[in-house]
This record gives sequence, structure tokens and C-alpha cells, in this order.
Amino acid sequence: MKKHNFYAGPSILPEFTIENTADAIRNFAGTGLSVMEVSHRSKEFVAVMDEAQSLFKELLKIPEGYSVVFVGGGASTQFAMVPFNLFNKKAAYLNTGAWSKKAIKEAKAFGEVDVVASSEDTVFNYIPKGYTIPTDADYFHITTNNTIYGTEIKHDIDSPVPLVADMSSDIFSRPMDVSKYAIIYGGAQKNLAPSGVTFAIVRNDMLGKVDRHIPTMLNYQTHIDKESMFNTPPVVPVFAALQTLKWLKSKGGVEGMYETNVMKAGLLYDEIDRNPMFKGTVLDKEDRSLMNICFIMNDGFEDKEKAFFDFATERGMIGIKGHRSVGGFRASTYNALPVESVKALVETMQDFEQTSN
Amino acid sequence: MKKHNFYAGPSILPEFTIENTADAIRNFAGTGLSVMEVSHRSKEFVAVMDEAQSLFKELLKIPEGYSVVFVGGGASTQFAMVPFNLFNKKAAYLNTGAWSKKAIKEAKAFGEVDVVASSEDTVFNYIPKGYTIPTDADYFHITTNNTIYGTEIKHDIDSPVPLVADMSSDIFSRPMDVSKYAIIYGGAQKNLAPSGVTFAIVRNDMLGKVDRHIPTMLNYQTHIDKESMFNTPPVVPVFAALQTLKWLKSKGGVEGMYETNVMKAGLLYDEIDRNPMFKGTVLDKEDRSLMNICFIMNDGFEDKEKAFFDFATERGMIGIKGHRSVGGFRASTYNALPVESVKALVETMQDFEQTSN
Repeated sequence: MKKHNFYAGPSILPEFTIENTADAIRNFAGTGLSVMEVSHRSKEFVAVMDEAQSLFKELLKIPEGYSVVFVGGGASTQFAMVPFNLFNKKAAYLNTGAWSKKAIKEAKAFGEVDVVASSEDTVFNYIPKGYTIPTDADYFHITTNNTIYGTEIKHDIDSPVPLVADMSSDIFSRPMDVSKYAIIYGGAQKNLAPSGVTFAIVRNDMLGKVDRHIPTMLNYQTHIDKESMFNTPPVVPVFAALQTLKWLKSKGGVEGMYETNVMKAGLLYDEIDRNPMFKGTVLDKEDRSLMNICFIMNDGFEDKEKAFFDFATERGMIGIKGHRSVGGFRASTYNALPVESVKALVETMQDFEQTSN
Repeated sequence: MKKHNFYAGPSILPEFTIENTADAIRNFAGTGLSVMEVSHRSKEFVAVMDEAQSLFKELLKIPEGYSVVFVGGGASTQFAMVPFNLFNKKAAYLNTGAWSKKAIKEAKAFGEVDVVASSEDTVFNYIPKGYTIPTDADYFHITTNNTIYGTEIKHDIDSPVPLVADMSSDIFSRPMDVSKYAIIYGGAQKNLAPSGVTFAIVRNDMLGKVDRHIPTMLNYQTHIDKESMFNTPPVVPVFAALQTLKWLKSKGGVEGMYETNVMKAGLLYDEIDRNPMFKGTVLDKEDRSLMNICFIMNDGFEDKEKAFFDFATERGMIGIKGHRSVGGFRASTYNALPVESVKALVETMQDFEQTSN
């Protein structure tokens, strides 16, 4: 039976990435060795790292004056790296979910944190608007896509102070204006690679403005200076990331992805809105994520939740259980998810409706 | 032509690890999905993490009261994590090479560092002895194997203060007494896994004794409490590590490895000592590493260096160029390197001697 992979992350990757990585695990770039057992200083791997950084910049149209680094430690380590590198007197944060909260917690160890707005009172089911960003903040931090709650800031906001964004779960999902950001970072395990590599896009002139000692590995400058080779990088995840970047380019880049993502999400949101057995969890439709689509059983059908889960599982749907804080279901529709999988889920919802009536 | 992989790291892994990982990249644990695209919370991956931690403890006979964690960031991040977690007033370090120096540099940001001895004056070609460990130090830090220089502390030393060891390049190479250490850490990319995962063995009662704020991801307790699942772990490297641990067990564990490692290193050191064209770089034979065997052209044969490199390369020897700070050659003979590869290198040295006479 065909499996439909709706995992929230680590999540579906292109067949191109999977096949090329499996091949390179056995024989990398004609070396006769596994990509797992070659020196990161070998000319074959240096070429991989160089091409990954260059394609990353090309696909996001990253302007001059920015660097791209690949490091370990996940976005969770970035939560501390951002204040280590940027925090002087005060930082502003938008609280849109569990990951925002973790970022805020790390920043508070460095001084005053102004949480400009929060949707925590309603389990983060909307993106706050109309807040004021303090102009004396060193930076303003947002989480663009909130995987757990299915909300997303789908445009590049204007900020009077340097804008820092955790884009772990929506990087490469749409065209964007990188010049509006000071730092963009994220774990790669949604739209890019298997887990184990973290990307950061850093505007070079943001660095060197704090007096504190920054541990070498938490200093962006370390990785910029050594082009992500200060220490041994996570070789397999970087190799896989390059494959995904190549696949992205072949599919029309972020513009092509965006078109497909809007179409895929539209199919599923339309069914959620049409099917009387289900309802979406996000309050404002404009805040609905293109990456993580959250829905629950509609009023009167609450007792059918397990039945639908089992029904969908029997039809090959994987990873659709909602996060425990939201309940219900979450279908993650990342770049690599084929439209066929979305259609299969829509049909499953329709068939369930028929079966239950 | 058969390739012989002498890379210093990332380095050769068992065929068992390579084949099983390549298979799981296509179909993991019968899920029909790649190991790169399954949730780290899936029961299939949780089982991998649990078994990896459990086998890790079993193979090193780690006593009660210790935890094993797998994190990202490499040993370079551990250089800062150790003082973040343990440093109160003063730390003692043994300086045996470039990696020791990096660890010392990070610790100095926390206060007084007593470098009890150093072999830097002679390009780290021996392990200092007869030094005194200050009893008022919070801990004493050593690098057990010095990859670049080919020296190794091959026994578990006695320390009057908690002993911390970077064992990146010799973990699992010999039986050891973990109870003599407070913390043992290392990048996994030599004897365990591809790069991207770092292990730490932590005596639980060492933690919670400092007052400073520790960034969440740099706090060992975070990862101990969540069994290495606080954030998304590097799934593929952890999967590969489990395969290597299974292979290790099937080969007689660290006792079996040690026997083979002594034999392999013996073959190569014997040839270095016998062959008039070569000489070892390590001053005291007792300090010679079982993992990285460094040698240069003997006096009078200096001009043959490139010729030998080319001769060996033509015969399938890979990664034998010495580090630029030592020059000459370095053959890394990690656990997974077959004895056949060592014999092939020895024959190459013998044939080169014949050819040149």
C-alpha cells in the first residue's frame, strides 16, 4: 500500500534526495567509499559544501552582505546563539507558540525581553497583529511557522529594528525578501534535509557589536570565517540538503514550490471547510499555515476522532495525529509532499463522511 | 582496485554500518519510509535511540550513576559545555595537542586554567608525564588520543579531582574503567558513526554544582532528563551509531577491538621501525597511538616523500597524508579498518623500499 507521509518533522523528503543519499552511502562521488567515511576536507566533500551554500543563496536570492552557515545543534541551540551574538540591552519577541516560548526563555538570561504580543491565551490559534515593536530593542524575533498550531506569518514583515526569524518549518516554501531580515535560522529537518544540520542566514554587519565572551561554537563569525568547516560538519545531512536544493531548483525553485504549496493547502483547507465532520483549528483564515494543516472533529462528531484516525491509518496516512496541546489531526504538507498524498487524504475524509452517514 | 581508507576522520566505518544505513535510507524498519523522513518520536526511531544508549553502556561497562547522551555540535561544542557545567573556581588541563589547546581556550573564558604540562615545544610528539594535578581544581581535562600527532594516553589515569576526557578518536578502541572519569565526550566520526552526533558519558552527581545560567542546550541535565530527545536528534548518525555498536558487540566488544588494534598497530609500527626509509614521529614508543600512526621519511630520504605518496596512492591508499603541522604520513587505523588494509600499506612500504634501491 502507498504510504502518505504527513509527519511534522523529521518529514518527507524528495525521492531524489533519498535515492541519491542512499547511493552515496554506498559509493560517494565515484570514490568507492561511503559519504559517511570520507574526510570533510576531501575535495569531493568540499565541493558538496560549496555547492550547497551557493545553491542555498541562489534559491532564496540572498543579497550581498549575507552569509549562510550550516552548523549542528538544531534551532534550539540557535535560541541561545541569537542573544549571545546580538543582545545588548533589550530584545523584543513575538510569542506565537511553544518554539517562540523556548526562544524567549533563552533570551531572558541575557536581560530585558519585551514580549510584544502573544496568542497563548487561546492555544496560539492566531498570529497577533497590531503590536508595536519597540525601537530601542536590539532585535525583534519571530517564529514564522508554528508547526504545532498550524499558524504562519506568510509574508515578510516590516520591523524598525533588526528582524530575526526562526524559519525551521517554512524555509524554501515561498519566495521571500531576505533583505528584510538580520538573521534567519532553522533546523533543516522539514523542507531541506534529515535532522542533524541547522542553517543560519546572517547579515554580516549584525555581528561584532556585543562585548560579552561568546563561546567559539556559538559565535556566528566562527562559522562564517571557516565557511561551515571550523569543525567537522554533519556530512550526511549536508549532502542530503544539497540533493534537496538541486531538486528544488529543478521544480521551479521557491516560486514553483509556493505555487504547489498554495494548491495543496487549498485542497485540504477546502475539504476541512466543506466537510461537516471536521473543522480547522486556526481562528483567522489568513493565519493558516501552508505547511501544517490542523483540524479537529466538528461539534457533534467529537467521538469519531479515533475512528477517523484508524480509517486514515488503514489507508496509508502516516503522522496525522495532532500535537497533544491541540488534539485532533495535523497534516504536514511540506514541499516534498506530493499533491497525490493531499488528494488521498481529502478522499479519505470524504469517504469517512460517506461511511459515517 | 581495492581502496584502503586511512582517513583521520570522518573515517572508515564497518561494511555492516554502511549497508544497514543505506538500506534504512530507502526503507527503515519496514515502515516503507526513509530513516531520514520519519518522526524522531515514532516508535521505530525511539527504539533505535533506546538500543543505542543501552548498547553504548553495555559495551563500555558503564557503571550505575552515569548517563549517556547523544547531542549535536561536535566535540568543539563540548569544549564549552564542560566548563559551563563544571567550572567554579579553577580547572586543570593537560596540553597534548591542537584539540587540547582549543579546549583550554574555551575554559579560559570561565576563570583560572592551570595547564599542568604541555608538549607543545616539540610539536606534541610525546605525552607529558610526572606533572602534578592541583587538588583544588574543579576538574582535570585530558585529550586521550591526539589524532594529528599520533600520541595516545592508552590507560585510565588516576586523578585526585574529577577527570574529564575528550575521547573523540579512541573511544571503543580498548577496555576502560569508566568509573575513573567524571565526563567522557567525543565526536562520533571516528570509531562510531558518521559526523553529526556527539556522545557524552556523564557522572550524574557532577551536575548542578555551578551557579551560572547554562544555556538549555549546553546543559547536560537537559539531555539526560529527556534521554537525548529534548530536541530533534541527528537521526541518521544515531541510526548508524547503533549499527556500529551492534557490529562491535559481534566482534568481541572493546576487548576484541583492542586485541585487533594492538595487532594492526604493531604490524605498521614494526615496519616503520624496520624500514630504513621511514621513521616514526612520536618520541616515546609507549606514547604511540593505536589509532593514528604518524611517520615521515627517514634522514637522507626526505626527497622521496612525494614519490612515496604517489606510489601509495596508486595502490589504493587513501587519506595517508600527514597533518601539515607534522608533515609526512598518517595512517589512521580505527576499529573498522581491516587488517588487510594495514598489510597492504606495509607491503607498499616494503615495495617502495625495493623499488628505490
